[in-house]
Amino acid sequence: VNVLPRVVQELIEKLENLPGVGPRTAARLAYYFLRAPENVSTELAKVLIDIKKEIVLCENCFNYSAEKLCPICSNNSRDESILMVVEEPLDIVAFERMGDFQGVYHVLGGVISPINGIGPEEIRVEELLNRIKEKSISEIIIATNPNLEGESTALYIRNEINKVRKEVKITRIARGLPSGADLEYADDLTLQKALEGRGEF
Amino acid sequence: VNVLPRVVQELIEKLENLPGVGPRTAARLAYYFLRAPENVSTELAKVLIDIKKEIVLCENCFNYSAEKLCPICSNNSRDESILMVVEEPLDIVAFERMGDFQGVYHVLGGVISPINGIGPEEIRVEELLNRIKEKSISEIIIATNPNLEGESTALYIRNEINKVRKEVKITRIARGLPSGADLEYADDLTLQKALEGRGEF
Repeated sequence: VNVLPRVVQELIEKLENLPGVGPRTAARLAYYFLRAPENVSTELAKVLIDIKKEIVLCENCFNYSAEKLCPICSNNSRDESILMVVEEPLDIVAFERMGDFQGVYHVLGGVISPINGIGPEEIRVEELLNRIKEKSISEIIIATNPNLEGESTALYIRNEINKVRKEVKITRIARGLPSGADLEYADDLTLQKALEGRGEF
Repeated sequence: VNVLPRVVQELIEKLENLPGVGPRTAARLAYYFLRAPENVSTELAKVLIDIKKEIVLCENCFNYSAEKLCPICSNNSRDESILMVVEEPLDIVAFERMGDFQGVYHVLGGVISPINGIGPEEIRVEELLNRIKEKSISEIIIATNPNLEGESTALYIRNEINKVRKEVKITRIARGLPSGADLEYADDLTLQKALEGRGEF
């Protein structure tokens, strides 16, 4: 159907390319921008440009940051001896929302995934090992996602750390039933991990 | 949680304000833009600005258009004697996708909704009546949405047209069971309309 002005069609296409946005949502959003006051789209446009100009990776942990060091790495009250390894900066947001973790992070920037051609060199394992060598770290919590790639990346990282420093304590976040879950509907792997990881009660 | 750089927080907030985008989707989209190549966000920003500059309302039918007349109104092969009244430009996209309608449109730009303070003056009823007075129109199809506000707007428009021109044929799009539907799950109003609108078979 060629009744749409070119620029509207273009906007719909660009919105469709965003993760989780289907053709109908894209069209609805495009028409929302057309109907809304001009500043709604121009201000979003401005932020979309600013974000790429202003945001860099933290030199220390590779979190997104507006400064050389992210707010967590430049916060003196954080415990630098506890290091949590995560896949993505968004994982940091989740842990910080929870609020109980007082240590610092290391962002891998992905997981090892041979199927997608991502080897250990493509994620920040070497940078992690350098941090471990240089800093006095008592515990490393590996918090990659509890899926196939996350688990094998966790194993790989554990082995690499062991080669460099044997005395450091390496832990893995617990896998089990999510709180509020219904046993009846849990998948086999979750049940298996919940059983394996059972603790004294 | 104040670990996010200000500009990232701002992007998430602006995305959250979009219709159908929740806090989690907004965060995921913001991080997608951070991770994606710069041109993904700058090109979207450009289109968001262009859309407000380039798009106007069609002088004739009030569809969105890059020219004074939209592609439908400037198409000589369309039948100007059949006029379909719709709420929004997006409704035109739906009918054009379907492809069977060869007439022209009139976009009301909303529906009468006393609860939201939208009276007949806020939508383009007068413009519709002017078109009907000036042009030779044989049929007016009222295609407002089949909900409370759409139905009462349809009734209001029918009455207003009757005041101006009695001889014009006014029709309303059929309401009934959508194709592929399961009778068992249809709501009462849909069943009622399906029964009321039954035809010879």
